[in-house]
Amino acid sequence: MRIGELSRRSGVPVPTIKFYVREGLLPPGELTSPNQARYGDGHERRLRLIRALMDVGGLSLSAIAEVLTTIDDPGQPVHEVLGVAANRITSTESVESGEAEPGSAEAREEVAALLARRGWRVSEDNPAARSLVGVLAALHRAGHGGFAELLDVYADAAEPVAHADLDYVRRRVAREDLVESVVVGTVLGEAMFGALRRLAHVEASARAYGETDGAEGAGRP
Amino acid sequence: MRIGELSRRSGVPVPTIKFYVREGLLPPGELTSPNQARYGDGHERRLRLIRALMDVGGLSLSAIAEVLTTIDDPGQPVHEVLGVAANRITSTESVESGEAEPGSAEAREEVAALLARRGWRVSEDNPAARSLVGVLAALHRAGHGGFAELLDVYADAAEPVAHADLDYVRRRVAREDLVESVVVGTVLGEAMFGALRRLAHVEASARAYGETDGAEGAGRP
Repeated sequence: MRIGELSRRSGVPVPTIKFYVREGLLPPGELTSPNQARYGDGHERRLRLIRALMDVGGLSLSAIAEVLTTIDDPGQPVHEVLGVAANRITSTESVESGEAEPGSAEAREEVAALLARRGWRVSEDNPAARSLVGVLAALHRAGHGGFAELLDVYADAAEPVAHADLDYVRRRVAREDLVESVVVGTVLGEAMFGALRRLAHVEASARAYGETDGAEGAGRP
Repeated sequence: MRIGELSRRSGVPVPTIKFYVREGLLPPGELTSPNQARYGDGHERRLRLIRALMDVGGLSLSAIAEVLTTIDDPGQPVHEVLGVAANRITSTESVESGEAEPGSAEAREEVAALLARRGWRVSEDNPAARSLVGVLAALHRAGHGGFAELLDVYADAAEPVAHADLDYVRRRVAREDLVESVVVGTVLGEAMFGALRRLAHVEASARAYGETDGAEGAGRP
């Protein structure tokens, strides 16, 4: 297809496509004449991925370039490729906690114990593990260390969700599509769970506190 | 106690306490001499709540004032008070979607069907419901409308988490403490689940893709 068709199908404007080619994010099309190039399905797939990494994942151009380099390296196993993409997103959102911040030592022990208890083979250096340490340390600092007692309730809920996520991802074959669905599923799935948890709060609170006509009370801002 | 003791116990500097009193967020202490006032446990409790709303919930001073007014109104039922606090947080974080944006109509129908299917008595105007509409619309726009098939898996996971959250909140008696635990639990609980889901992804991906030595692959950034 020509660049105009690629633009229509991907929803990405022509000048933006040319910019991605200049930046090395998108391979150039095959030249059919001195000033005309032909693009294929691979270009469309890669454009979708670039947009997902940028718009949904919030990645910078240099982070996108790094993810694409990993995808294009045939020596990198799929698990590693997914990890690079997922960790890039994690690190932008995580609640980081300094080594010396109050509550950090306790939080690190809680996370190590959790990983051992559940048999999750994840390094404690994993960005998500560090993010969890940050959350637990923040709970301790806010005087709510007791909330960490809910860790296993939360982990029990996280496991089936993670398996469903991975089933969704595994429907893809091309590496671009795998990574794209990881990014979309990780970011929007997190927002989806957050909204559902809050909806379930409203229902649970209505049952607990609002017996009569207050059932929809929290629905009104 | 004197203001210095209140400051030590709450960790809030004296000038900040005075600022909160001037702004009407904290009631003045009881005057014991022309330039000395006595503060009680109620002041300490309210200070903790103000800090949680500000530091954890990310609320503005005017939003905090609104939450406190609701707490202090004996005519407001507890369910309503919790709703005001929760909705204040929701609205700052939500993925909003315009009425006319592509995918919104479909997303609204999906959310209405979900609420009916699960028997959740929540208004479709609820900020969390609107946030869910925004997430689903974003999925449709990203070409991942199929991810919405996981809605019930996610909702099944959200329910026990929401009940555990509410059990945690219900240990409190004073309205300030109830609201404070709602804010802390909602915000940090969301981050806690997000981190756990990502950890569970690493484990699930290691099982699915990394058979040999790749088990901790995604743990290395």
